[in-house]
Amino acid sequence: MKIGIIGATGHVGQAIYKEAVAKNNEVTAIVRDAKKGQKVFGADAKVLEKDALALTYSDLKGFDYVVDAFASPKAYQHIDVATNLITMFRENTATKLVFIIGASTLLDDDGQPMIDTVLKKYAGQPWIDAPVQQSHEFEYLKWIDNVDWIAATPQNELIEGPQTNFKIGGDHPMVNKDGKETTTIGNFAAAIVQEMTDPKRIRQRFSVVDA
Amino acid sequence: MKIGIIGATGHVGQAIYKEAVAKNNEVTAIVRDAKKGQKVFGADAKVLEKDALALTYSDLKGFDYVVDAFASPKAYQHIDVATNLITMFRENTATKLVFIIGASTLLDDDGQPMIDTVLKKYAGQPWIDAPVQQSHEFEYLKWIDNVDWIAATPQNELIEGPQTNFKIGGDHPMVNKDGKETTTIGNFAAAIVQEMTDPKRIRQRFSVVDA
Repeated sequence: MKIGIIGATGHVGQAIYKEAVAKNNEVTAIVRDAKKGQKVFGADAKVLEKDALALTYSDLKGFDYVVDAFASPKAYQHIDVATNLITMFRENTATKLVFIIGASTLLDDDGQPMIDTVLKKYAGQPWIDAPVQQSHEFEYLKWIDNVDWIAATPQNELIEGPQTNFKIGGDHPMVNKDGKETTTIGNFAAAIVQEMTDPKRIRQRFSVVDA
Repeated sequence: MKIGIIGATGHVGQAIYKEAVAKNNEVTAIVRDAKKGQKVFGADAKVLEKDALALTYSDLKGFDYVVDAFASPKAYQHIDVATNLITMFRENTATKLVFIIGASTLLDDDGQPMIDTVLKKYAGQPWIDAPVQQSHEFEYLKWIDNVDWIAATPQNELIEGPQTNFKIGGDHPMVNKDGKETTTIGNFAAAIVQEMTDPKRIRQRFSVVDA
């Protein structure tokens, strides 16, 4: 498959890039800085240099999947990148879109998004903006019924580490064998590439936990 | 002021155009079909021919206000036009954005958006898509804290008729002197131009009822 990864030089983006290449996909790193991209992925890597917010349909129409692993200190840009991608692929199932959505959108025991509790506790903290905007992004995605989107969510602790074994879940937090809510970046990337290879969760969110 | 009106040849768009011109603003009709625009507004009218979804920052940056009176049988395009406008004016207060948001977003006696009840009653009806998408559009706008947006809502019955007298309200339905939830298009347009002339409701929604 042809896969484009927005934010490929980021933490999660790199892991998805490597896993997708390892599974014999034709992967393009979509990055702001081509030099950095070639340095990270090698001189032979396919790199498209473009600001995530400036991407157009003609940049992306050739991909089977576009993975949005974009990150920015301006948290509102998460939703701006998402709305731009959704708008360009309306009524078009040739390209599927994968969005990384944070663990704060998982539901607590009362069925409420965890961000609601977090917000009450930490309102005004500067770091809260990223989970808030990702939560908005996920709300927005749930409105979209004519684009093939998939949302992928790690557990609360997205940690360094290779692919080992993982389990797939839905809207509620899950724990590893030690009772901790962890997802290694390797497992998260492997789960995403697995879903792209055999998509079963179109217009759904799936979550990943270390087994 | 310089005012651009997206969807100016539409029902509400025409009324806003005429009222804004009558109040000595420099108004540009932003329309898909320039010939139709010139026919409606006269050969001397300023007309920008462009598809609403293709508008860019360089098209719109010169305006003090952009009014989104866009309408489409593809109801999801309401939100696509809105997200595109918001994205291009992030962290930029030189241009304010006015959105027309339907009466189904007003709140019932229990404080719930009326669309929720309507949805339960009329789920699956083809016409429901427009109020649903406008409701999403309004939810989206409420997330936006770094763009000067204003949402304008008529009462449930937006009817033909000139400017007479009107009252401004907030999130709850209001009635005219005969106890009916009506807003003439003339009053709606006059209220919008009044708010642009003397903006008091930045990042808020106001509603309009015939007095």
